[in-house]
Amino acid sequence: MDSRTGLPLVGMVGGGQLARMTHQAAISLGQSLRVLAADAADGAALVAADVHVGHHTDLEALLAFAKDCDVVTFDHEHVPTGHLRALAAAGVVTRPHADALLYAQDKRAMRSRLTDLGLPVPRWAPVASTVEVDEFAAGEWPVVLKAVRGGYDGRGVWVVSTADAAGSILDSGVLLIAEAHVAVRRELAVQVARSPFGQVAAYPVVETVQRDGICVEVLAPAPNLDPRTAIRAQQLAITLATALDVVGLLAVELFETPDGGLVVNELAMRPHNSGHWTIEGSRTSQFEQHLRAVLDYPLGETALTAPAVAMANVLGGESGGMSIDERLHHLFADDPGAKVHLYGKQVRPGRKIGHVTVAGAAMDEVRARAARAARRLREGV
Amino acid sequence: MDSRTGLPLVGMVGGGQLARMTHQAAISLGQSLRVLAADAADGAALVAADVHVGHHTDLEALLAFAKDCDVVTFDHEHVPTGHLRALAAAGVVTRPHADALLYAQDKRAMRSRLTDLGLPVPRWAPVASTVEVDEFAAGEWPVVLKAVRGGYDGRGVWVVSTADAAGSILDSGVLLIAEAHVAVRRELAVQVARSPFGQVAAYPVVETVQRDGICVEVLAPAPNLDPRTAIRAQQLAITLATALDVVGLLAVELFETPDGGLVVNELAMRPHNSGHWTIEGSRTSQFEQHLRAVLDYPLGETALTAPAVAMANVLGGESGGMSIDERLHHLFADDPGAKVHLYGKQVRPGRKIGHVTVAGAAMDEVRARAARAARRLREGV
Repeated sequence: MDSRTGLPLVGMVGGGQLARMTHQAAISLGQSLRVLAADAADGAALVAADVHVGHHTDLEALLAFAKDCDVVTFDHEHVPTGHLRALAAAGVVTRPHADALLYAQDKRAMRSRLTDLGLPVPRWAPVASTVEVDEFAAGEWPVVLKAVRGGYDGRGVWVVSTADAAGSILDSGVLLIAEAHVAVRRELAVQVARSPFGQVAAYPVVETVQRDGICVEVLAPAPNLDPRTAIRAQQLAITLATALDVVGLLAVELFETPDGGLVVNELAMRPHNSGHWTIEGSRTSQFEQHLRAVLDYPLGETALTAPAVAMANVLGGESGGMSIDERLHHLFADDPGAKVHLYGKQVRPGRKIGHVTVAGAAMDEVRARAARAARRLREGV
Repeated sequence: MDSRTGLPLVGMVGGGQLARMTHQAAISLGQSLRVLAADAADGAALVAADVHVGHHTDLEALLAFAKDCDVVTFDHEHVPTGHLRALAAAGVVTRPHADALLYAQDKRAMRSRLTDLGLPVPRWAPVASTVEVDEFAAGEWPVVLKAVRGGYDGRGVWVVSTADAAGSILDSGVLLIAEAHVAVRRELAVQVARSPFGQVAAYPVVETVQRDGICVEVLAPAPNLDPRTAIRAQQLAITLATALDVVGLLAVELFETPDGGLVVNELAMRPHNSGHWTIEGSRTSQFEQHLRAVLDYPLGETALTAPAVAMANVLGGESGGMSIDERLHHLFADDPGAKVHLYGKQVRPGRKIGHVTVAGAAMDEVRARAARAARRLREGV
């Protein structure tokens, strides 16, 4: 128990924007989130009161951090599995636990488990040589190569059209799986929260719009989605969360195929970019929901608060030009209803430095407004 | 400028729930609010990263706190006017400034100024003796006595039915004004934000429900309010904010008289209990709006996000019984859509330890749900 609050103490490993926004949500619940930040300048470390500075690959730092925590959870998937097991052996409760989190850390384990569960995945195989890539392709190019561990935001994913093109990636020594290139109508995502008690709560299915492998927009609910497909996606996420014994949030990234089918792309077991819209757009934000789940509180209502909600990521632009402060002035003058979320990060080109959400009556309108606001934060105009 | 964020640094004097929720809102704007807390265990000090511990009556502490701040604002009205002037003389920008804040600190100055402005106030006069109270009453009892400075939540207000009853209050040496007892249909409140540029933004008029002088419920928008009365209330608040040169939020507490008239009761120049509903119920929360105003950002949209929003304060109950953690479990199981805000305070009977907001389609329903959720946090059942 946290002696300051009389409530259970939650620790979150990682000090990025997800921890920052989880702390923000934690305040409402009477919590003071403890954060393990790799750097004192991390976004969450700038706003949380209880910050330990240490790296998630440093077991001593993890153990010291976890010492008084009733439950430890995660802002990312990068804690080594061995460290997770060492924490459990030391009596630390992590949610999700190592055996579940593995499926968000290791794409080969994930693909294998989903295949066993009979869930829809692309044809896939582990590959260790250009010969194996060529055999996997069997003449059907392109093929998608994915690093088994460590990829995110388009990193660790390569689309190759020849076995030779796979050579330099294999030469780097990274462990790979190959996947068939799936014909995609669009990308969808669905989030479900699950508590230790076993309660589940699914959010509406959203459309995620990618550019260069990075999510740039999320539309909630996914426009013109067949209601049966939406229910199938939610059921798939609930099945997965239960089968993998996930505690906390599970985000399932999906491909919608041209015939209306669904294929699982990626999993994440934490608050996720595809759920940032929930801060304004759902009765319970994903950050509050994650906390409720890891605290084993009954889960919150996931209903939309408006007919249409659009979230646009703000990527860092070239340096120079207007300050962020000046850009904020222009954005707010332009659209008094746009909701801005800045992450306290130094601007680097292409880096996610914030997001903007607009909720309203019609998707076309809120989408255009969110995109315009994000552009104002990126470029000033 | 805050070197950590590249944005202007805002300091808030006072570490209570208003600073706590302002910090929560500040996170979205990329800010790291600096808080001057009287005690390291204050609600805001438990959740903010940049906390100075010091008292608001200690000028040295105020000056040290304000040193790198681009703007200093307030969680309460208790900073002595002399200290505010000393801060200004030292080059500190306070918003609101001392000349405006005076009217939220000194009820005699406020009544006098409002009278000069021709705004509706009860008949009033300064009183310093039972004879003066008797003369003021002129046979019309009861009379309301108010401490010129320092009252809140029903403290510093006495309803007396004889001049003798005023004696013991006068004997305590507190500076008083007397006011005619106004016949009241109900209490209303309206908030307006004003920026240094002079932009104003008014929130919908709300009904505040008091018990024993403490606000227990806020209903937004005020049910069955004549639209002309609502517009008059908003215009009155805008007139006041402009005339007093308020920067930040101004809350105007009003009496609605049986004939539909309005009388100004109290003023506050900060986020206010009557605006907590805006966190979920308005497109821009009062906490974000206050920050936007003191930062001179264009103000946010004040539209309701749902047809009916009810806020219920959670007052501390008797000690013993269920822990707050257990009460949260019961509350969330009972109503997954109730939004809880806890202030990190030790429970004392009658102390505001949090609030609950419910937004929905119909006032009767959301009001009942908010009251039930607040009772669960107070009593467990």
